Amino acid sequence: MPKVAIVGYGQTKFSKEDLKIEKVLMDSTKNLFDNTSNLSQDDIDAVLVSTNNNSKYLSAILSESTGIQPKIAHSIESLCNSGTNAIVSAYSYISSGLADVVLISGAERYDSPGQVLEWDQLRGEFKHPIFWASIFSKSYKRKFSITDEDLALVSVKNHKQSIKNPNALFQKAITVEDVINSRKLTDDLRLLDCSSPCTGGASILLSSETICKNFTDQPIWISGIGQKTTSASFTKNPAFDEMESTKQAARCAFNMSKRNPEQIDVMEVHDAFSVCEPMAIESLGFANHGKGLEVVKDSFLSENPKINPRGGLIGSGHPLGATGIAQTIEIVQQIQSKADKRQVDKADIGLIHNMSAGATSSTVLILEK
Amino acid sequence: MPKVAIVGYGQTKFSKEDLKIEKVLMDSTKNLFDNTSNLSQDDIDAVLVSTNNNSKYLSAILSESTGIQPKIAHSIESLCNSGTNAIVSAYSYISSGLADVVLISGAERYDSPGQVLEWDQLRGEFKHPIFWASIFSKSYKRKFSITDEDLALVSVKNHKQSIKNPNALFQKAITVEDVINSRKLTDDLRLLDCSSPCTGGASILLSSETICKNFTDQPIWISGIGQKTTSASFTKNPAFDEMESTKQAARCAFNMSKRNPEQIDVMEVHDAFSVCEPMAIESLGFANHGKGLEVVKDSFLSENPKINPRGGLIGSGHPLGATGIAQTIEIVQQIQSKADKRQVDKADIGLIHNMSAGATSSTVLILEK
Repeated sequence: MPKVAIVGYGQTKFSKEDLKIEKVLMDSTKNLFDNTSNLSQDDIDAVLVSTNNNSKYLSAILSESTGIQPKIAHSIESLCNSGTNAIVSAYSYISSGLADVVLISGAERYDSPGQVLEWDQLRGEFKHPIFWASIFSKSYKRKFSITDEDLALVSVKNHKQSIKNPNALFQKAITVEDVINSRKLTDDLRLLDCSSPCTGGASILLSSETICKNFTDQPIWISGIGQKTTSASFTKNPAFDEMESTKQAARCAFNMSKRNPEQIDVMEVHDAFSVCEPMAIESLGFANHGKGLEVVKDSFLSENPKINPRGGLIGSGHPLGATGIAQTIEIVQQIQSKADKRQVDKADIGLIHNMSAGATSSTVLILEK
Repeated sequence: MPKVAIVGYGQTKFSKEDLKIEKVLMDSTKNLFDNTSNLSQDDIDAVLVSTNNNSKYLSAILSESTGIQPKIAHSIESLCNSGTNAIVSAYSYISSGLADVVLISGAERYDSPGQVLEWDQLRGEFKHPIFWASIFSKSYKRKFSITDEDLALVSVKNHKQSIKNPNALFQKAITVEDVINSRKLTDDLRLLDCSSPCTGGASILLSSETICKNFTDQPIWISGIGQKTTSASFTKNPAFDEMESTKQAARCAFNMSKRNPEQIDVMEVHDAFSVCEPMAIESLGFANHGKGLEVVKDSFLSENPKINPRGGLIGSGHPLGATGIAQTIEIVQQIQSKADKRQVDKADIGLIHNMSAGATSSTVLILEK
């Protein structure tokens, strides 16, 4: 299969600002052009927009606003993992030969309609993601005798990291006490256990092997791809203390890349809520079931926190359609040794985990030099 | 490049019914399963939904409702050509090796939000497609001394054809007088010059060459793909009497398939309004500029009307996200000699033309045995 590289990226600061979706898309795309040497509008064969915004024809609008006349142009939506779905789609356009260069721009507003899970009638009144996260938290805590204070460490770690990320929504260290004393939203979740919806954009440029050197001397290769949708309804999850779709996606990505968990130097995992980080670490194969928090603790104490170095969703904010792309950009910057204060030692191989709707679907990507 | 075949299809009747989008998706998918021998849920690697509906996570919802657990699952939107964008995306997933079998389901409700063009501020009050269609009609009529009666023939022909299409919204023959006497919407457009938004679904199954024979003994190959987005704003069109994006998409599709217009036996063109049919015929290369209506007349008088045999958008109705898929199904059925009363003689090679927003973007596909 022809190789596909990531050759450019751009971002906006994540905020609570009331910006039009078109502006967010354009700002991160402009930043990508500013960052990418030799890229001209004519190079771009496809423009994909990743968002949950209700506006239509956004790929054509972004193309016109930025002077691109692409062959392929459409939006992609799959709630919180729209971004990595768009990356896999771009990979396939290039790998199939239909495109040489694909621009993906992910954007969301703080009031995204993707935050309410309208379809799942079994949820009754409980249509907000905090309800599935509460069920995960209660199940995980009960099964492994874990306390609220244990889980709070995820948020403390990710807030600590996000201070080193200039694009992050949160720029303030917090303590376990701050988490425990923050507003209680459900029996098992406090405000600081949750990622925050926000306004933000992240754009990324993918290219075929033949021309990638036109744009960068540090192409980063997508060596592993795994995706799985087990259901749409949370109550169809086979268990509430692990992520089945993540397990299957990880298996597929490791197979394709011929890598194993021991070889991963740095990773972004989808910490939509504090409990998600240890659960994801386990389901990805980095810890035994129930032992994910030990890896979180190691990362917290380390000089080189290899898990969620940009602060994860909890520290960076969660603009749904941009999140998977922002996660991927972080791993690209780490492998390129361009992650500034967040830089992890010897980050040669990295992993991205991005999921939707209580881990009913997951994407896992593996990137390397 | 590995070959990709269309190996199954399903549809609902197009109507003005007030059905949930999930039901429309499921009904045409169920019809596809009923039509496709040996297809089991486990065969399907990817589920793509094509729609302008505002509901999120529809690919996961459709997957769960139909018992599929796909690897890849997301929605695709590009207004009226969402359907062919989804087909090209599916092609790339298979051609790249990420999937062997892809199910695409397109669906729309009669009240689709894709019918109002919110983004184009230059339109001022004129956000409905009838306004760009009026500009096309006025320009085309003036430049080539064409009358309202001449254009009305498109609608007469397509209503005549749709009687032979059991899924079509309209099942009644009309005359040129009926068109002229129908409600005047703008100076240049009457109600019967327009396609009608409606509720409908169309699903299609694509497969790799290696396993296509599991599902059908008549695989139909996608031999040509062309896509182009020139702008989002109608006023950026270089001319109002031709379709620039269609010209470029056609050139690319003919190049890829190594075919030329003389070899096309049957075609579906995007007659969102009566004027669009002759303009598309010209921009696709089937007639000189200003001579498209002669081809329409030939098709009207022929025993084997090779243009829009299912009745086009005007006769069949236009459920946005389903339209490009329904067009493609028609050409597949024609090439398989399964188009019943609509069957065109010796239909070995067919073409699909699907566009959005005043031909600011177009897709052209070429299919063959």
